[in-house]
Amino acid sequence: MAAEQDPEALAAARPLLTDLYQATMALGYWHAGRAREQAEFELFFRGCPFGGAFALAAGLRDCVRFLRAFRLQDADVQFLASVLPPDTDPAFFQHLRALDCSDVTVRALPEGSLAFPGVPLLQVCGPLLVVQLLETPLLCLVSYASLIATNASRLRLIAGPKKRLLEMGLRRAQGPDGGLTASTYSYLGGFDGSSNVLAGQLRGVPLAGTLAHSFITSFLGTEVPPDPMLAPAASQGPRVDLAACAEAWLDRVCAHLGLGVQEPHRGERAAFVAYALAFPRAFQGLLDTYSVQRSGLPNFLAVALALGELGYRAVGVRLDSGDLLQQAQEIRRVFRSISAQFQMPWLESVSIAVSNNIDEEELTRLAQEGSEVNVIGIGTNVVTCPRQPSLGCVYKLVSVGGQPRMKLTEDPEKQTLPGSKAAFRLLGADAV
Amino acid sequence: MAAEQDPEALAAARPLLTDLYQATMALGYWHAGRAREQAEFELFFRGCPFGGAFALAAGLRDCVRFLRAFRLQDADVQFLASVLPPDTDPAFFQHLRALDCSDVTVRALPEGSLAFPGVPLLQVCGPLLVVQLLETPLLCLVSYASLIATNASRLRLIAGPKKRLLEMGLRRAQGPDGGLTASTYSYLGGFDGSSNVLAGQLRGVPLAGTLAHSFITSFLGTEVPPDPMLAPAASQGPRVDLAACAEAWLDRVCAHLGLGVQEPHRGERAAFVAYALAFPRAFQGLLDTYSVQRSGLPNFLAVALALGELGYRAVGVRLDSGDLLQQAQEIRRVFRSISAQFQMPWLESVSIAVSNNIDEEELTRLAQEGSEVNVIGIGTNVVTCPRQPSLGCVYKLVSVGGQPRMKLTEDPEKQTLPGSKAAFRLLGADAV
Repeated sequence: MAAEQDPEALAAARPLLTDLYQATMALGYWHAGRAREQAEFELFFRGCPFGGAFALAAGLRDCVRFLRAFRLQDADVQFLASVLPPDTDPAFFQHLRALDCSDVTVRALPEGSLAFPGVPLLQVCGPLLVVQLLETPLLCLVSYASLIATNASRLRLIAGPKKRLLEMGLRRAQGPDGGLTASTYSYLGGFDGSSNVLAGQLRGVPLAGTLAHSFITSFLGTEVPPDPMLAPAASQGPRVDLAACAEAWLDRVCAHLGLGVQEPHRGERAAFVAYALAFPRAFQGLLDTYSVQRSGLPNFLAVALALGELGYRAVGVRLDSGDLLQQAQEIRRVFRSISAQFQMPWLESVSIAVSNNIDEEELTRLAQEGSEVNVIGIGTNVVTCPRQPSLGCVYKLVSVGGQPRMKLTEDPEKQTLPGSKAAFRLLGADAV
Repeated sequence: MAAEQDPEALAAARPLLTDLYQATMALGYWHAGRAREQAEFELFFRGCPFGGAFALAAGLRDCVRFLRAFRLQDADVQFLASVLPPDTDPAFFQHLRALDCSDVTVRALPEGSLAFPGVPLLQVCGPLLVVQLLETPLLCLVSYASLIATNASRLRLIAGPKKRLLEMGLRRAQGPDGGLTASTYSYLGGFDGSSNVLAGQLRGVPLAGTLAHSFITSFLGTEVPPDPMLAPAASQGPRVDLAACAEAWLDRVCAHLGLGVQEPHRGERAAFVAYALAFPRAFQGLLDTYSVQRSGLPNFLAVALALGELGYRAVGVRLDSGDLLQQAQEIRRVFRSISAQFQMPWLESVSIAVSNNIDEEELTRLAQEGSEVNVIGIGTNVVTCPRQPSLGCVYKLVSVGGQPRMKLTEDPEKQTLPGSKAAFRLLGADAV
C-alpha cells in the first residue's frame, strides 16, 4: 500500500519519524555486515499506568499501516546522507532506499486487549537493521494509543455503563495528531464519541457537538433573522415565528419560576432561537454564558417549549462551569416541574450534559447513584493523561540469529529478560 | 499555497481537525444570515504554566501555514453533510466549499516572545463563520507549541548557557505530530537539538544521536567484522586492525584501573569497535549496558585510545541509568588519570552525556557548579510537560460588527474582557 493511496496518509507516521541513533546504528550494523541478521525485539511496558492493575494494548492498526507503507524516499535518504559522515559508503544508502518491511513479522496482542507489565504488546522479527529502525515509530504509535485507551477505560469503569462519555480534548492535545490519536483510542477504551470531526471522518468515531459560548455572545438580540418561521415537525400545519413563540413561552416560564421576564438575557435567547431554527430536531442549550438559573435555563425552556409546541423535542442542556452535579439536580427538578405544569412529559427526561475539567474524582461524583447528569464531556483529563502523561513503553532486543540477548545493567529495573516470550493468562475454575 | 505543494503537508492540520460544534455553529450563523459579519476572537491563556511567571508564545508558523492552506475539500464537505441534518440547505455546503482565509487578518505576538495571562497571543479578525471554524485548530496549534517552548525555556534557564540540552522524547509524545511539535518548539525554547530526524528534515532542528543498548546487546564478540581495518585520520600511514589495537589498549587500561582484563564484556567491546569503524570521527560509548565501571568505561577507553593512536578523537560517553552526577564525576576523574597516564590530553575533556527521566529537580542537580556533565538528554519531562500537560488556551469572541462582546458567567475566572486588546509592556528607567 503506497502512502499516496492511503486516505490517512496525512495522519500517518513516516520512516524518518525516528531517533537519529536508529540511523547511526543502522550504519553500524551495515558496516559490520549484520544488516540482514535475523533479530527479534519486544515492545512492552514496565509498570501499569495510573497506579492501576492493567493497561489496554492499542495502536496496532496504526503500526500495521506504518509497516505496510514503510519505504524511505529519495529525499529521506538524501537527508540521512547529509547528517551521516560524508565518507559513508554509497552502498549503505542504496540499501536504505530499497528497504521495506516485507521481511518483518509482527506478533501482537489483539487491539484493545488487556496488557500487563513485561508482556510483549508487539514482537517484531526481521532483519536487524530494519527492525532497529522501527523502534521509535512503533513506540510512538503504541505508547500513547495504549495510554489513552487505558485512561479512557478507567474513566468508563468509573462512569458505569449508562453515562454517555464524550472526548473533547483536541485543543489540549499535542498538536493535530495527538488529538486524532486521543479521539480514536478513547473511543476504543470505552468512550461513546468525540467532538473531533477528523476522527469521525477518518476513523468512524461517532461525533457530538452543538454550540459554544461564542455563538451565544455573538447575539445581542437585536439581530433580524432572515427567516424566523419554522414548520411543524410533522410538516403539517402553518409555519410559526419561533422567536415570537419563545417570547410567549418565556412569560409563562418566568411566571412559574418566579423570575422577572426581563432577567433572561435576550441575546442568549436570540442565539438559542437561531440555533433551534437551524437544528429544530437537535436543539441543545448551553446554559452558563450569563447565569444558569436566571437566564440560561428560562431561555432554554422558552425555546424548548416553543419547539415542543411544534412537535420537536429538544435534546437537552449543557453546563460548563460551577458545581456540575448540584446544578444538574436543580435543573432536573425544574424540568420535572415545568414538564408537569405545561404537559410536556418528554421534557423531564431531556439530557443534561456537563463539562469543565472533569477528572477521575469529579467523574466519581457525577456518576454517583441518583445523579441527574446524563452526558459527560472530558477534554484535558482524558487527552493529556495528567496523572501519568506517558506509558513508558520500551522496545528491547531479545534475540539475534536465534540466540537470546539481554541487558544486564546495574539498574535491576532496566534489566531485560532474554529470548522470545509467550504469554499465558491463567484462569481459576471460577474464571478469575 | 496549496496543501499538495507544502513539503510539510503530512504534518499539517486540516480544516476538519476541529470540534463538531464549530461546524454546527457555522450552520447556525449561516442560517441566521450572519456568516459574513465581521468578528474578532482573541486567543490567550488564563494562567502561566508550571506555576511560573511567563510563557513563550509559539506555533505562529504552523498557524500561518494552516490558514494559507485552509480550504474544505469535496470529501470534507460531504462528510459534514453526513453529520448535519439531512434537510440542511445545500447553499450552506456551497458556502463551505468556497471558504478560505483570504478575508481573515491575524495579529500575533512574534514567535518565541514572552506572553502573559490575558494578553492575546493571536487576534483573529474576519467573517464570523470562518473565524469560528478556526477556533479548535488554532488552539491545537498554539497551545502545545507554547507549552513545550515554555517548558524548554525553563529547563534552559535551570541548565544555564553551557550545558548542551537535547530533546529525545519522540517515543513519549502523543503520536507522530506530538513528537514533531515537541522537537520543533523545544528547540525554539532553548534546547540545542533533538533526536527526531523528521524535525531535522522538516524544521532544520540540529540532530544528535549515536547508539542504544540494543546495538550493544546485539554483539556477542564472536562476530567477524567484514573489515576490521581503519586508516589513520590523516589518511597517511598503514591501516590498522582496530579490534586488535583496542585489545592491546584494554590490557593497559585494565592494569591502570586495577581491573581484570576478562571483566569488560567482550560483546560490548565488539559493539564499540563496530560503531567506531563506522563512525571513527564520532565515536560515543554508551556505558551502562552491563556495568559502567567494570565494563563500559574500560571498553570505551580501550576503543577511544585505539582511535586516538590513529589520530581520531572520541566524542565522549553516555550514561542512561544510576546516579548520573556521581558517575559523571567519577568518569571525569578516570578520564583525567588515563589522559595523563597515556599522554592523550584531549581525552580528559571529552563530553559526558546523560539521560534517564531527567526532570527540573534532577537537572538542577546536574547543572550545579562543578558538575562534569556536558550534555543532557531529556525525553518524557520535556515532551509530556508532566507538571502541567496542557496550557489551557482559550479563544474568545471579543467583538462582532465592531461591537464588544463578553461572557458574563457566574464563574469569575471564566469571564472575558470585551473588545479588542492592545498589550503594552512598561519598562522602568532601568529597563526592568
